[in-house]
Amino acid sequence: MTQIKPTIPKGMRDFLPEQVAKRQYITNTITAVFKQFGFSEIQTPTMENLSVLAGKYGEEGERLMYKVLNSGDFLNKFSSDDELLKLSNENRAKFASKITEKGLRYDLTIPLARFVVMHKNDLVFPFKRFQIQNVFRADRPGKGRFREFTQCDADVIGSDALINESELIRIYEKSLQNLGIQDFIIIINNRKILSALAILVEEPEKITDICTAIDKIEKIQWDGVKTELINREIPKAQTDKIKEFLEISGNFDEKITKLKVLFSGIEVAEKGIKELEEIWELSKILGVDSANIELDLSLARGLDYYTGAIFEVKANQVQIGSIGGGGRYENLTGMFTKESMNGVGISFGVDRIYEVMEQLQLFDNQLNTNTTKVLLVNFDSEQQKSILKIATNLRVQNIATEVFHESGTKLKKQFKYADQKQIPFVCILGDEAENGEISVKNMISGEQVLVKIDDLSKYILNQDVAQN
Amino acid sequence: MTQIKPTIPKGMRDFLPEQVAKRQYITNTITAVFKQFGFSEIQTPTMENLSVLAGKYGEEGERLMYKVLNSGDFLNKFSSDDELLKLSNENRAKFASKITEKGLRYDLTIPLARFVVMHKNDLVFPFKRFQIQNVFRADRPGKGRFREFTQCDADVIGSDALINESELIRIYEKSLQNLGIQDFIIIINNRKILSALAILVEEPEKITDICTAIDKIEKIQWDGVKTELINREIPKAQTDKIKEFLEISGNFDEKITKLKVLFSGIEVAEKGIKELEEIWELSKILGVDSANIELDLSLARGLDYYTGAIFEVKANQVQIGSIGGGGRYENLTGMFTKESMNGVGISFGVDRIYEVMEQLQLFDNQLNTNTTKVLLVNFDSEQQKSILKIATNLRVQNIATEVFHESGTKLKKQFKYADQKQIPFVCILGDEAENGEISVKNMISGEQVLVKIDDLSKYILNQDVAQN
Repeated sequence: MTQIKPTIPKGMRDFLPEQVAKRQYITNTITAVFKQFGFSEIQTPTMENLSVLAGKYGEEGERLMYKVLNSGDFLNKFSSDDELLKLSNENRAKFASKITEKGLRYDLTIPLARFVVMHKNDLVFPFKRFQIQNVFRADRPGKGRFREFTQCDADVIGSDALINESELIRIYEKSLQNLGIQDFIIIINNRKILSALAILVEEPEKITDICTAIDKIEKIQWDGVKTELINREIPKAQTDKIKEFLEISGNFDEKITKLKVLFSGIEVAEKGIKELEEIWELSKILGVDSANIELDLSLARGLDYYTGAIFEVKANQVQIGSIGGGGRYENLTGMFTKESMNGVGISFGVDRIYEVMEQLQLFDNQLNTNTTKVLLVNFDSEQQKSILKIATNLRVQNIATEVFHESGTKLKKQFKYADQKQIPFVCILGDEAENGEISVKNMISGEQVLVKIDDLSKYILNQDVAQN
Repeated sequence: MTQIKPTIPKGMRDFLPEQVAKRQYITNTITAVFKQFGFSEIQTPTMENLSVLAGKYGEEGERLMYKVLNSGDFLNKFSSDDELLKLSNENRAKFASKITEKGLRYDLTIPLARFVVMHKNDLVFPFKRFQIQNVFRADRPGKGRFREFTQCDADVIGSDALINESELIRIYEKSLQNLGIQDFIIIINNRKILSALAILVEEPEKITDICTAIDKIEKIQWDGVKTELINREIPKAQTDKIKEFLEISGNFDEKITKLKVLFSGIEVAEKGIKELEEIWELSKILGVDSANIELDLSLARGLDYYTGAIFEVKANQVQIGSIGGGGRYENLTGMFTKESMNGVGISFGVDRIYEVMEQLQLFDNQLNTNTTKVLLVNFDSEQQKSILKIATNLRVQNIATEVFHESGTKLKKQFKYADQKQIPFVCILGDEAENGEISVKNMISGEQVLVKIDDLSKYILNQDVAQN
């Protein structure tokens, strides 16, 4: 047989047993919190029709989205060689659209919108859903940036109540705490206040430009932001007001007081401030520790569609960017139906949380890849039958058990297998079998004892409890 | 906003909360059994390089595999307009290979082979892995046939011991029993015996033709098989021997005795028969009920790569084809490395098992979509604070709780929400709050009682235990 080199696509990953276990620990922990707040899980297909995805993710999305070649005769939509040649030279995007109809999941939000519209009659509103699936982006791979990665979203569709925002904040806090991440900050802001800022500088249509610029303040400082604002044609004289806005400091109440002064008379600001105050108050009632939330007026979030509260979460001890984000949006379903539905949602970055937990060594050592508790040494094929019976009895007691696969293998090799797989108990059926006994070696303590074969499962269960 | 029609790609599916819960029930149940036998979970990317997948799945695979358009300038591998035009007219496959480098996961076996070779040094051998991921085939959608569906595989790589075959048979039996499917049959056969059959009819190279033909006996009966054999150039005179082989009947021991006579002196048959006997014996020691396994000499399995035992599983009460299959193969890794590794594996068809369980009504009614236990009625925004505090206390006790999102909504509507989401307890904080009491309505029994607010979580926990 001629061999080819085994390779894996750039930016994509295999997960070894230990990694799968750790990743599932993260998603299971978050899932438990979602359920505690009444969210139910849905799943959507890996592929969506491009007609559904087109135009939803901006120019970047167009570029980074994976498109799937049509099955069968994929060139049959060209009417002639001339058309094919013309498009191949002049319009790659149009060429692509002739040979692809489906794209890979790019996020979980557009699929949610499609799902809600298509299954409206089978859902209970407000629809509290969570979804944990992989998304695909042909981005340049880098530290913590992959071309296939896991998103973990919770959204409430069909409710304007601010209770939702506060519950989602509490979900962030509780999930991270349950994962053992203690030092984090949930940053909040409100898009209405940013709209008010655009009104304040007399450039209400430039809201996106202003957001894009001020969102970068951490990276490029005020001078950088100012340059960017001027490049985006915000009059120089007006940038001072933006500076004044960004310099608002103090605790939550102090910032609110200053905002009220700055935006006095601007209606949308008043609404945004009121929302912030209510979310803040409700969050505290729900048990959120004020030390874990911060009003950061420079938080803008890239995405256009937010209209109210916006969130971002960072782990303070690890430099990795945000590990979560979200916000309130209006009319999620507007792209598919005249019936407007509002919503609010959050997202956890599973891959980044993994990285944070690795760096802080938060994964429990007990979170073992291998759940096998007992290895039965396999001396020879005659004895093998007795061993298989013992294995069967242990499994009936729900004790994960392996029989070493090949009888007659050197004892050393069988022990090495147990050692490598971190199996805590190795059982050897020796001459003591005549007295109905089996030898049990505890691989952690090194201790070796004789146990009645009939009592073996009870012994293992007791030992195992003692160890945990 | 102009609306577009929300659509989902043909042959692909959304899963509503109830469906997700049922599907997870299936995979969790099987996972628990896999772990009990010492298998660990891995995952591979959704996309593989086409260089890895090419030529592995035959002509059908070539046709049904989804290919992903290269990112960026996908036409840049054509050296000229002439080449593009020439390939577009003469060779679609070659055209496709110029614009696609990656394909979607087609099964879990080739990715496993690649995985084992690439991560060899990080694995413990024999490597007992399981994997539950979706695969993609551009097949014609039909009843129980989808373009994205879930495979659930367990394989042992790097062991020739027949213990593995027997443990996998036991895994099939135990998984199906744990799912509540009692009436099923695990059909076994051995490829070596089929090789012997080809030798017996003096056409040793025609093993694949013979397998393909006899595999259809259930559908087309002996006359059909005979015609197919003749079409495949098996001499008419020899077909009688194949008929004699297929007519071997009786229980396991009787069949074995007849096989020994028929294949006397053919070495490969003797080996295959010995394997069958040993697997049969070990399976019984492992607790497999003989009534659940059957030696079916017409079982051939389409795939070329099997070399020893082969399996197929059917649910007797539901007409849906096989719900599982597998077998032993030699040199899985031969496509990537000179180092040969043998293995044996089984696969569960999750989507078909789902269908079987639905038809037999095996999903527990308790397997509720919605895990919320308590809905707190939300009368007005003043009272809302007290309610949120109660919700927080319930959640601390791990009781999944929702607060109705909008205060002031009509009571009827709030109860309707609880009813639709099948929430078992609705709590109303009324005038009794002055005495520290809250009214709890059991939505199943209709009973309504007053409970001390401080005792609410204890009350709910007790009631919930009583109900289950």
